[in-house]
Amino acid sequence: MSDIVKEFNDYRSKMNDKILGDNNKIIKRIFNLDTNAYQAGVLDVKTKELLGLVASAVLRCDDCIRYHLENCYKEGLSKEEVVESLSIATLVGGTIVIPHLRRAFEFWDALEQQR
Amino acid sequence: MSDIVKEFNDYRSKMNDKILGDNNKIIKRIFNLDTNAYQAGVLDVKTKELLGLVASAVLRCDDCIRYHLENCYKEGLSKEEVVESLSIATLVGGTIVIPHLRRAFEFWDALEQQR
Amino acid sequence: MSDIVKEFNDYRSKMNDKILGDNNKIIKRIFNLDTNAYQAGVLDVKTKELLGLVASAVLRCDDCIRYHLENCYKEGLSKEEVVESLSIATLVGGTIVIPHLRRAFEFWDALEQQR
Amino acid sequence: MSDIVKEFNDYRSKMNDKILGDNNKIIKRIFNLDTNAYQAGVLDVKTKELLGLVASAVLRCDDCIRYHLENCYKEGLSKEEVVESLSIATLVGGTIVIPHLRRAFEFWDALEQQR
Amino acid sequence: MSDIVKEFNDYRSKMNDKILGDNNKIIKRIFNLDTNAYQAGVLDVKTKELLGLVASAVLRCDDCIRYHLENCYKEGLSKEEVVESLSIATLVGGTIVIPHLRRAFEFWDALEQQR
Amino acid sequence: MSDIVKEFNDYRSKMNDKILGDNNKIIKRIFNLDTNAYQAGVLDVKTKELLGLVASAVLRCDDCIRYHLENCYKEGLSKEEVVESLSIATLVGGTIVIPHLRRAFEFWDALEQQR
Repeated sequence: MSDIVKEFNDYRSKMNDKILGDNNKIIKRIFNLDTNAYQAGVLDVKTKELLGLVASAVLRCDDCIRYHLENCYKEGLSKEEVVESLSIATLVGGTIVIPHLRRAFEFWDALEQQR
Repeated sequence: MSDIVKEFNDYRSKMNDKILGDNNKIIKRIFNLDTNAYQAGVLDVKTKELLGLVASAVLRCDDCIRYHLENCYKEGLSKEEVVESLSIATLVGGTIVIPHLRRAFEFWDALEQQR
Repeated sequence: MSDIVKEFNDYRSKMNDKILGDNNKIIKRIFNLDTNAYQAGVLDVKTKELLGLVASAVLRCDDCIRYHLENCYKEGLSKEEVVESLSIATLVGGTIVIPHLRRAFEFWDALEQQR
Repeated sequence: MSDIVKEFNDYRSKMNDKILGDNNKIIKRIFNLDTNAYQAGVLDVKTKELLGLVASAVLRCDDCIRYHLENCYKEGLSKEEVVESLSIATLVGGTIVIPHLRRAFEFWDALEQQR
Repeated sequence: MSDIVKEFNDYRSKMNDKILGDNNKIIKRIFNLDTNAYQAGVLDVKTKELLGLVASAVLRCDDCIRYHLENCYKEGLSKEEVVESLSIATLVGGTIVIPHLRRAFEFWDALEQQR
Repeated sequence: MSDIVKEFNDYRSKMNDKILGDNNKIIKRIFNLDTNAYQAGVLDVKTKELLGLVASAVLRCDDCIRYHLENCYKEGLSKEEVVESLSIATLVGGTIVIPHLRRAFEFWDALEQQR
């Protein structure tokens, strides 16, 4: 099952290279900002990753959810912390978030099995 | 073609079990509410399922559309009633709803072929 | 308090005239469709107005909610039927719908006081 | 300027009473969940309020933003922590979030002047 | 009526100053990008402003619509060009865009009366 | 790789036939409008296709993006013009648009390889 992690990362990495290779300045700067915004500031990286996860969940973007789930996992956040964040996203965003919750749980399982 | 119905339900059921097994109270209560909200009240179940379908369609959630299509089908709503509801969703939500309309028609066909 | 009904309708009517007076064909046809879509078909007008109301609520458009609330009121739908529809919208769309719920309740009160 | 805080809270409180007085069970339970979800769990209240704030910001709901800003303020979160959270929301949600950022800054100022 | 232009610009300008004065690097860079993205490139400024207008309209952000309407006006785009763009936005985004169309027509009138 | 173009068009064409064969008047008229809206008016077809592309991108509809990418390609728009439009969509819509950007780049490559 951990293939869904590899598949996600391979496609993401391949296409990001194509996008960045295209040299559109606005897009490149947005990619840069995306890296900078989640670095430690007055808030630590863990909190910021949970913020990114919840933003992705209420906007219902599976790829964005996966990206932040993987970062949460790498940062050592527990499943309980991640699920508690996702519960807030489901409450704020409504039952329409539930299908994304299913795929989020599947991806988190895949991350754990990867070890 | 009716495989898309089985596939949808199997994955939905498997992942719902995982989510509910995780015991997050907020998520569990939202799942409970989701069952209760569509039961007969001053509005009958058919009307409520059409409301759920239209909400899902304008918010462009394929899985939610499929879920309500299947309930509409089980409740004995006709294709004409379902399509009339989806026509309102397409008008309110715009042409951006059309790709979801395609998948909704495909899923309804699969439901009919399942008999 | 019923001034919010008059104010809403006056502005809506004045600006619709300006928009239609501008003679853009696409916009005029969308306005026409908007009238036709809610007329009786295999579904009755009451059901269609509730569908329009729920679509408006999950998409969080106060003016659209008001428009359908007024039609629901004119069609003789009860407050209980309207609120049951809005409860589904709040569940599907999440707590983010609640501020619109407040304004919907206020508008419905204004409609009732208008008598 | 702190009138915008009072005005917001008065209207919110008055209409919440009307909604809850209407006794729709689904809506009442969603209101209950909304209270429970932000209480301390594996995540502390501060983190949860920031999650609620970011969810509200990317979904562009001014009233929800105000509600969480006020809670953030009461919980003793610093402006810098709040703004860092909002910066993530603006990046994820795009420049379309900026008008809500303006009103968020105005509301935070009003909260500070209230002291 | 042209007061709505002045009011919009005054508030926008005052709050942008507060936001930028706060020195959050991510937000400042997003503001910078927002200026750069609409400058002439392989597409001319007029086309880019219409793109910004349509993006704002389908995402239903009144302030963003006003901002791009004013730029369209300053760039010498005709009302017919602007309305044709808005007709595409209304078709893609659905009737839910119509209330924003009303306010867009009102703002354009105000821009014309300002002369 | 150009199979993703054929696959997309085959499914789209097959399901559109089913939808139109169903004879719901509202849906048929929306399909008609969708054809008319992108024809030359005061704005040329190229500009209108870019408007449709940006609307689709900020609303994050992959199928709609693909549809307009193919039309942009047929109309002779350059990749640079298309990417510049998409950069505005990414800025307005936020990093949540990036996964759709990846699939847009992949589809454009497939269009170019089809020659």
